[in-house]
Amino acid sequence: MISRFNLTKWMLVLALGVMTLAPVMADDYKAGYEELIESQGEYAYAFDFFTVSMLWTVIAAAMVFIMHLGFATLEAGLTQKKNTVNILFKNVWIISIGLLTYAAFGFNTHYPCGDWIIPNIFGIAGGQPWIGDLNAGGGDNFGYGGVGLCMTAYGDFIFQAMFAATAATIVSGAVAERIKLGSFMLFSLILVAFGYTIAGSWHWGEGFLNQLGGGEAAFYDFAGSTVVHGFGGAAALACVILLGARKGKYTKDGIRPILPHSLPLAAVGVFLLFFGWFGFNGGSVLSAAPGPLGLVFTTTALAAAAGGVTSIFTSMIVLRKPDLSMALNGLLAGLVSITAGADAVGVWSAVIMGGIGGILVVFSILFFDKIKIDDPVGAISVHGVVGIWGTIAVAIFGGANFVSQVIGVVAVYAFAFIFSFIVFFIIKLIMGVRVSEEEEVEGLDVAEHGVPAYGLD
Amino acid sequence: MISRFNLTKWMLVLALGVMTLAPVMADDYKAGYEELIESQGEYAYAFDFFTVSMLWTVIAAAMVFIMHLGFATLEAGLTQKKNTVNILFKNVWIISIGLLTYAAFGFNTHYPCGDWIIPNIFGIAGGQPWIGDLNAGGGDNFGYGGVGLCMTAYGDFIFQAMFAATAATIVSGAVAERIKLGSFMLFSLILVAFGYTIAGSWHWGEGFLNQLGGGEAAFYDFAGSTVVHGFGGAAALACVILLGARKGKYTKDGIRPILPHSLPLAAVGVFLLFFGWFGFNGGSVLSAAPGPLGLVFTTTALAAAAGGVTSIFTSMIVLRKPDLSMALNGLLAGLVSITAGADAVGVWSAVIMGGIGGILVVFSILFFDKIKIDDPVGAISVHGVVGIWGTIAVAIFGGANFVSQVIGVVAVYAFAFIFSFIVFFIIKLIMGVRVSEEEEVEGLDVAEHGVPAYGLD
Amino acid sequence: MISRFNLTKWMLVLALGVMTLAPVMADDYKAGYEELIESQGEYAYAFDFFTVSMLWTVIAAAMVFIMHLGFATLEAGLTQKKNTVNILFKNVWIISIGLLTYAAFGFNTHYPCGDWIIPNIFGIAGGQPWIGDLNAGGGDNFGYGGVGLCMTAYGDFIFQAMFAATAATIVSGAVAERIKLGSFMLFSLILVAFGYTIAGSWHWGEGFLNQLGGGEAAFYDFAGSTVVHGFGGAAALACVILLGARKGKYTKDGIRPILPHSLPLAAVGVFLLFFGWFGFNGGSVLSAAPGPLGLVFTTTALAAAAGGVTSIFTSMIVLRKPDLSMALNGLLAGLVSITAGADAVGVWSAVIMGGIGGILVVFSILFFDKIKIDDPVGAISVHGVVGIWGTIAVAIFGGANFVSQVIGVVAVYAFAFIFSFIVFFIIKLIMGVRVSEEEEVEGLDVAEHGVPAYGLD
Repeated sequence: MISRFNLTKWMLVLALGVMTLAPVMADDYKAGYEELIESQGEYAYAFDFFTVSMLWTVIAAAMVFIMHLGFATLEAGLTQKKNTVNILFKNVWIISIGLLTYAAFGFNTHYPCGDWIIPNIFGIAGGQPWIGDLNAGGGDNFGYGGVGLCMTAYGDFIFQAMFAATAATIVSGAVAERIKLGSFMLFSLILVAFGYTIAGSWHWGEGFLNQLGGGEAAFYDFAGSTVVHGFGGAAALACVILLGARKGKYTKDGIRPILPHSLPLAAVGVFLLFFGWFGFNGGSVLSAAPGPLGLVFTTTALAAAAGGVTSIFTSMIVLRKPDLSMALNGLLAGLVSITAGADAVGVWSAVIMGGIGGILVVFSILFFDKIKIDDPVGAISVHGVVGIWGTIAVAIFGGANFVSQVIGVVAVYAFAFIFSFIVFFIIKLIMGVRVSEEEEVEGLDVAEHGVPAYGLD
Repeated sequence: MISRFNLTKWMLVLALGVMTLAPVMADDYKAGYEELIESQGEYAYAFDFFTVSMLWTVIAAAMVFIMHLGFATLEAGLTQKKNTVNILFKNVWIISIGLLTYAAFGFNTHYPCGDWIIPNIFGIAGGQPWIGDLNAGGGDNFGYGGVGLCMTAYGDFIFQAMFAATAATIVSGAVAERIKLGSFMLFSLILVAFGYTIAGSWHWGEGFLNQLGGGEAAFYDFAGSTVVHGFGGAAALACVILLGARKGKYTKDGIRPILPHSLPLAAVGVFLLFFGWFGFNGGSVLSAAPGPLGLVFTTTALAAAAGGVTSIFTSMIVLRKPDLSMALNGLLAGLVSITAGADAVGVWSAVIMGGIGGILVVFSILFFDKIKIDDPVGAISVHGVVGIWGTIAVAIFGGANFVSQVIGVVAVYAFAFIFSFIVFFIIKLIMGVRVSEEEEVEGLDVAEHGVPAYGLD
Repeated sequence: MISRFNLTKWMLVLALGVMTLAPVMADDYKAGYEELIESQGEYAYAFDFFTVSMLWTVIAAAMVFIMHLGFATLEAGLTQKKNTVNILFKNVWIISIGLLTYAAFGFNTHYPCGDWIIPNIFGIAGGQPWIGDLNAGGGDNFGYGGVGLCMTAYGDFIFQAMFAATAATIVSGAVAERIKLGSFMLFSLILVAFGYTIAGSWHWGEGFLNQLGGGEAAFYDFAGSTVVHGFGGAAALACVILLGARKGKYTKDGIRPILPHSLPLAAVGVFLLFFGWFGFNGGSVLSAAPGPLGLVFTTTALAAAAGGVTSIFTSMIVLRKPDLSMALNGLLAGLVSITAGADAVGVWSAVIMGGIGGILVVFSILFFDKIKIDDPVGAISVHGVVGIWGTIAVAIFGGANFVSQVIGVVAVYAFAFIFSFIVFFIIKLIMGVRVSEEEEVEGLDVAEHGVPAYGLD
């Protein structure tokens, strides 16, 4: 950091800039750039703002990508050693299939923009079934969405595509250690390709949640407390109900804790998620507008910090020990709490929102354990329960319409739950969803993948 | 990489750009943007530069954030398995409390800008005690600090906030494996909230170090070799002296090495720190000015590389083996060496500065071990000792005033040491700072947190 | 994500922007900026585009840097526990020496721009032997390469320098677990400093591959399927042939699989490589031009995803199990497949290219194992074999000249193989390249470095 407000130093930098900038314009460049400026005419200014915004969009996409590594390591770390390969494998699958199905039809299902009643999967309702058509239609077109959407169609696609697989990743954690690989692969494909994109279209695709009160009382969910996290949490709940708890978790003698196999791996996961969240929330500004960007980074970080602190103290009081898993989930709860309103609240509100999220998540995890909903990583609590809080909180702190927020939560959660329940139920009927008891005891790594995660020498 | 200087290809890209840019300006966008340009008047150009700079600021903040993961994994990796949960927990605490206290009063203590003698904690001396007031005062204001500080107040806050917790993280490593959790939580809170911000105000908050020689001979510390790293190292030394060495480290039969429990984790930490340092130093340019940015990235990388190479050869000669811990600390030493002068020296100088840092750190670590200052991760050497070298080196290679550099080092190190000594001493009197011998033998994970870091199955 | 095309909201943001922008121009800033604008004259527009592009260049450099962590953890994860320290140490060495030698003479060897026949190492042929001369010649010069190369010389250097060490990292994986440390250190230094830069100069340094057909049929390799990855893969093959297989791998009773010691570490590596690849390919646009940037991110991600999916199904069919190592290598194969043509093909093509890469890599790994070329991490297959495919695919899908692509592949692969063979052969003669049988059995960590990677308590 150079000294702030240090005018002398700044003038020096400026002078240096001037000196280096002045003499160097090659003639070949001159002609080309003049042509560019001319063709842009009065919009010349816009070009650079668009360029910066598009750069931010793709960087944010890369940061959201790294969240998939965060989810993978968090899930692997919080579960048993013997199921680690299985978890990593599932996550390779999710990100791969998420990107491909989103290109194939997810993007157009997600953003039918007017045609949301019959989502235009495979071109139904006149849509384009494949992102590839953007190419013909101007995939790198400046005016793709007007300057209100400061990105090319490819930029829009890649940012949204990175989000798409998140729902399945959330489910992956909740069903870990006993789900059949093939059944999960099929379910996650359907969930990402159709479930998430249909629900998302209600909000971001100009769907009915966006039209509430004639658009005056639109459902407000900035980066997806409900549409992404809540959706994943509700889907996870449906699956866990159908799947049942891990063997030996709930015994006659009470709840037997199944210890995480690597808390360092889990901590790496949470810190990477925190890092990626700056892309998740920050990228959702959809431009590099300095005002919103600074606010969103600040509220995001402070809500996470507050969630970390309150979950630490809550766990100290309730569990009578400083619990690392709870602290880690507290950070995530803070992040989910602010995701719906990151651009709409101030710093005090962000701290309160995140802080309440951090308290909520501890009680929620204990509650689900009590009613024997076995969620090895706490995904239903972190994303599902706290997602509700984050969404409602925008009505309390950020001026969103309370009724619309409730409608949004109910609609998305109900859809996610029912959609997942039906799909997972059918898969259960046809091919089963749970590994055999022997495989569960042996561990999925050797049973399904033929290799342990850790070698001995 | 496309071929450099390949004019044809560039003209093609340009032509493509022109074609896609020309026809697409929606009318609704047109009106809005014209208004924007008009209102900016002759400053229209500045807007985009400001936007780019602000984008870089928040991205750099995210990169500095990831350094906290780097510190956590480095510290965990270099210590024993049985204290891993404790270390990870401390790091969740540090980042959380660091962000919150910096919002509550750290930011205004750090930057009183004229009122530094009585830091305006909680509004004393007329300051604003809470970052939230930025909101009212223009948290997303373009002109917050003039263009010399190309960021909104929120951008400034979040970037500085990520730095703030670093001092505590450095201490965390040095006191690992035997400190009482509650005592550390309290100490780190006080250190981050008051210690770091007061010392920082002397330099970055327009304090006396910035006014040396009437401002003509200002103390030069670009991104904080002294103000951040040296501060942390000196604080760590004070704590270690009060805390004592780990049981069994220094025996009658000499020094018993306590082996690191996971060198892969440590290596991950160092590489993440290296990555984050590009945000730490690069973000300290405080704008996206291309000249300084390229220079800072280059000097940062080359100094690290030189530190890596010299520490490798030094360890080979002195320890008679290619020591991985030393090589990793050598990379960090190279980075600390360049942090004070990254924008003020050329590439040759950067290589020499980093290279000397890499040699210094090996001897320093051996020296502290010899005088029985037990620093499990080498933090006092890497940040404290090399921080001095990095600061002085700017006088040798970068034209800073030698006397001012010495004054800065003495003032900050003395303050950090004395402040930490007093606070930690009081905490020791009141609640103790060290776990019991049984707890130390058993490991803090099970003793304090009730769970091992690694599960068996 | 705020609702797309939601005009009202955008106008609000805009209005907010206008309000915050208007009143705040301090006079001291005014003068400085006016001077800047004046001096730029008609090129004022270019300044911001240049600034954005340069920012992207340095961020991309940091992302490519993180690939070195990815390579290190992938290699460590896929090999045995007892050789982990050795692998991490090699990777610290590679990045350090790669950056330093590239500064010392690599950069000028790589880009002789006309003088490629006698590369100007150490100033031979009139070149500048040290990046430092850029300083005098304008290291932070705006016009360094015209706007076609939107970066300062330092920006260009640091981005290219991060690439330079990649070739050695690829070799490192293939020769792991039995190579002598000193021999590897020497070989990697020579390979990075001279081998890679000479071959690279043929393409990116205006060399003969760039002049094929009088420049009309130039060899096309966008970000280096052949020039970076293929080069590394071919060099690795030469070394493995001279080095021989690990003891006990190929026995009379067939191939004995040597299990990876940490698949989580390997997975972390691959996801970090995937992340870094956005910088590798995206940064190779050499500017922040929105059109190419969005396309490159999209094709890169989709090719990786396709490689992941096809390698999963191929391994299920061929190996009769869902193999995690193959899935991870499939992601990488998808990435290598698209690296040569990421800016030149559409999304459908990217999916097909990556998908074929994912199939190829499985068969290639099995093939090399069959002919007893022992490559612990599959580097020869991932980078060498798939690199050929990626390069040829640009002729099939992206309109490159088929003959030129073949010439490029043959020239670079032959050079890499022969250069490496000769250098490694001489090193073998003089100092030996392989550790003793006892050291191999004991593991290199304790034998060469005197410390195990993982402590017991």
